Amino acid sequence: MQTNPSASRALLKRAARVFPPCVYGTIYGRIANPTMPPGGPQFFNRANGARLWDVDGREYIDFLCAYGPNLLGYGHPRVEAAAERQRALCDTTTGPAPVMVELAEKLTETISHADWVMFAKNGSDATGIALLIARAHTGKRRVLVASGAYHGTAPWCTPFTIGVLPEERAHRAEYTYNDVASLESAVADAGDDLAALFVNAFKHDRCSNQEMPSPEFARRCRELCDRTGALLIVDDIRAGFRLARDCTWSLVGVQPDLSCWSKAIANGYPLSAVLGSNSARTGASRAFIAATYWAQAVPMAAAIAVLDVIKETNYLEHTVALGHLLRKGLDQRALAYGFELHQTGPVQMPTILFKDDPDMRFDMAFTAAMMRRGIFFHAFQNIFICAAMTKDDIAQTLHAADGAFAELAEQRATIQPHPLVAYRSARVLQRTT
Amino acid sequence: MQTNPSASRALLKRAARVFPPCVYGTIYGRIANPTMPPGGPQFFNRANGARLWDVDGREYIDFLCAYGPNLLGYGHPRVEAAAERQRALCDTTTGPAPVMVELAEKLTETISHADWVMFAKNGSDATGIALLIARAHTGKRRVLVASGAYHGTAPWCTPFTIGVLPEERAHRAEYTYNDVASLESAVADAGDDLAALFVNAFKHDRCSNQEMPSPEFARRCRELCDRTGALLIVDDIRAGFRLARDCTWSLVGVQPDLSCWSKAIANGYPLSAVLGSNSARTGASRAFIAATYWAQAVPMAAAIAVLDVIKETNYLEHTVALGHLLRKGLDQRALAYGFELHQTGPVQMPTILFKDDPDMRFDMAFTAAMMRRGIFFHAFQNIFICAAMTKDDIAQTLHAADGAFAELAEQRATIQPHPLVAYRSARVLQRTT
Repeated sequence: MQTNPSASRALLKRAARVFPPCVYGTIYGRIANPTMPPGGPQFFNRANGARLWDVDGREYIDFLCAYGPNLLGYGHPRVEAAAERQRALCDTTTGPAPVMVELAEKLTETISHADWVMFAKNGSDATGIALLIARAHTGKRRVLVASGAYHGTAPWCTPFTIGVLPEERAHRAEYTYNDVASLESAVADAGDDLAALFVNAFKHDRCSNQEMPSPEFARRCRELCDRTGALLIVDDIRAGFRLARDCTWSLVGVQPDLSCWSKAIANGYPLSAVLGSNSARTGASRAFIAATYWAQAVPMAAAIAVLDVIKETNYLEHTVALGHLLRKGLDQRALAYGFELHQTGPVQMPTILFKDDPDMRFDMAFTAAMMRRGIFFHAFQNIFICAAMTKDDIAQTLHAADGAFAELAEQRATIQPHPLVAYRSARVLQRTT
Repeated sequence: MQTNPSASRALLKRAARVFPPCVYGTIYGRIANPTMPPGGPQFFNRANGARLWDVDGREYIDFLCAYGPNLLGYGHPRVEAAAERQRALCDTTTGPAPVMVELAEKLTETISHADWVMFAKNGSDATGIALLIARAHTGKRRVLVASGAYHGTAPWCTPFTIGVLPEERAHRAEYTYNDVASLESAVADAGDDLAALFVNAFKHDRCSNQEMPSPEFARRCRELCDRTGALLIVDDIRAGFRLARDCTWSLVGVQPDLSCWSKAIANGYPLSAVLGSNSARTGASRAFIAATYWAQAVPMAAAIAVLDVIKETNYLEHTVALGHLLRKGLDQRALAYGFELHQTGPVQMPTILFKDDPDMRFDMAFTAAMMRRGIFFHAFQNIFICAAMTKDDIAQTLHAADGAFAELAEQRATIQPHPLVAYRSARVLQRTT
C-alpha cells in the first residue's frame, strides 16, 4: 500500500489555523480529540461499500460507519440512484416535494407505533422536537433520562455543559437504565409534573457495557407513562433499523408514544425524524418547529430507497451473521494471547472492551493496533457492522486482530493509559465490568 | 399552461393523515399554515434557475428562493459540478474530507472579521453555537436580542413558546433595533453579567418594515461589547452574501466577534457556519458541539463553488440592478391603481407592504393575486432576487403586478382580512408604517 503520511500532517496544520481546538465531535474528532488513538486517520477522501480511504492513501474497513448512518454501504447503488432521480428534479426549494409525503407514508407503514411524522436534520433536532411535543402535549415540565445516556448536544441533554446554563437543564432528572426501582422513584419524585420519559433503544453509553432493555423495565416504562400521562419517547437514533425492521422496542413488545430516528434512515443523507402515535398528535399540533433545510427532498428520496432495501433484503440477518463471526473470532483470538474481552450489546452493534482494564489502556492500544492494520474500530463506544461487509472482511478483521493481540501481549507490561482517557475516566467513566 | 389542481389536492389529503396539523415552517407551511394565501402552490416537483413548478403543473418565478438559500439559481451548473465531484468521492463518512479545511480557509479569507470557523447544518444550530461560545468565553449569562428579531427555533430564541419552559429562556433580554438608548439601557441592566449581544445583519422581522443598521447603532454595539467583554454576534443567516461579499456589517464598518451563516452559503445544500475572530477563540475551544451530519462533505464542496462565484462574478450588482427595476416598477403600477406601497430594505431583499393596511388584507390579497399569475411572492416577510433572474423575469413580474393591482382595485371594497392574519396581527404585528 502506497501511503504518504505528509498529506494528513499538512491538512492538520492548515486545520489548526482555521478551526478552534475544541472537541468537535464527528467533524474533526481526529484533529483535536485526543481520546482517539494517536496515528489514526484524520481526513478521508474516498468511501465505498464498507471501506474508507484516508488522504494518506491508507485503506480501512470502517466499523464506525460514519458513527451510524452507513447501514447499507457507502454509495449504495439503489440509494444513490433514488437520490440522483430526485436531484434532477429539485432538492431545497420554497416548499416540499411529493417525496416528503411518500416517505412519511412509508415510515408510518414500517414503524408499527407511528401514525404521523415530523422531519428534521440531526438527532439533536429530533430529541428536542420530541421534548417540545411532550411538554406541549402534557402541559408539564419534568423530563426523565437515564444516567449516562446520550440524546444529543442541545442544552437540555448535552453531556458537556460548559457554556450551558443550569436553567436550560431545569426539570431534568435521571434514573438508571433497566433499574425499575430507580425509574419508579424518579417518576414518583416528578409528582404530577412528568412530561416525558426518554429511553434509548438499548443502553449504548460510552465507556460502558451495553445492555438490552429488559422486558420488565420496558413494560414498566409504558405503565408509568400510561398512569401519569407522560409521553414515552424511544431514542432510536443510533439503533434504528440495526436490530429490527420496526422501532427497536418492538422487540420487547412495548410501543412508545414518540420515537426519534436519524443515522441509518437515509444511509448518510442528512435526515432525522420524530415518529408519533395518535396519542401524541395533539402536542405535535401545538408545537412550532421550522428550519430551512428540513424539507430538503434528496435525503427523503434516499430514505425511501433505504426503506425498500430494508423491506426487501436480508440486510439485517446478514449483519447479525457477520456480527456473530466477529464476536466469536475476537474472543478466541484474545484468549489465545491471554486477554479476556467483554463484548456486549447486539453482535451487529458491539461494544468491545477488555476485562480488568479500568483505565482503558488496553482498549486504546488495541484500537490503535487495529487502525495500523487497516481496521477502523473505536476504543470506547459501540461499532457497527454494515450490510456491505462480507465474510472476507470479517476474516481480514480477525487476521488483523490476531496481529494486534500479539502486539499487545508483547508490550503488555509497558502499555500506558492514554492521558486524556485517564482524565476523562475519572469524570465520566461508568464502566460496569 | 396545462394544469391539474387535483394532484395538489390529492397530496394534501394524504399529507393530512401522516403529518400533524402544526405550523411546520418551510416544510409544509403551505399545507397547514393559513397565513399563506389560499390556492397557492403546495408541493413542488421541479426547480431550475429562478423558476419552480408545482405538482399541478403551474410554473412560478420564485421570489422566496427557498426562504433564502437560492442565491445563484436552482441547479447552478458550477455549484452542481463541484457537488458532483465530491459526491463521487465521499459525503457523510467517519471523518471530515479535505474540503472542510479548504472551505474554512476560503471563508476566513472572504469574511474580514473571521479567523476560524465551525460548521453545522441549520441556522438555529449556528445561533445556538454562537450563544454557547459566548457564555463559555465570558463565563456570563445574559443575552440581548432585538425585540421581534428572528434567530431560529431553539428554546432560547423561538418566537413560539408552546412547549418551551420559561427557564430555557432565562437571562434573555430585549432591546429595540437601531435604538441606541434602548440598547444602552439593556446593557446597563445586564450589569456585569452580559455574555452576548445578538444583532441581525439588518432588521428583517416579519410583518415589519425593514431597516438597515444605522452606523451609530452599529458602532455603539461594538463599543458596549468592548467595554463589557461581551461578544458581538451578527446573525447573517438570512442576509449573508445578499448585500456584501463580506459580513453584512462590513457595510457599516463594524466587525463582530462572531457571525452566523447559512442559507446562501451553499446555494441550497444544507450547511451553516459560525465564523469567529481570534478574540472569541478561547470560548470556542471550550464549547463542546457535535452532530452526525455536520462534516458532510458535499455541501462544503458546493459552498466552495459558491464562494468562487461570489468572488468572480457580478452576481451581487446584478441582483441590485434587478431589485431597483422591481421596486420602481411596483411603485408605479401600485400608484396607477390608487395604492401606495411601503417597500423597505435592500432592493434585492425587499419587504413589500401596503400603506394604510393595518390588518394586511391588501398584502395578502396582492400576494394571492400574484401567485395566480405565476409569481411567488410572500405577504409579510422579505422576498429575494436571485442571480438567475433576468430583466425579462422582472418585466413578467411587473406585468403580473399590473393585473394584480387592477384586480385589487376592482375588488377593493370587498377584500376581507385573512382570519388568521387578523388573529396573529393582534399578537405579533409590529408594523411601523
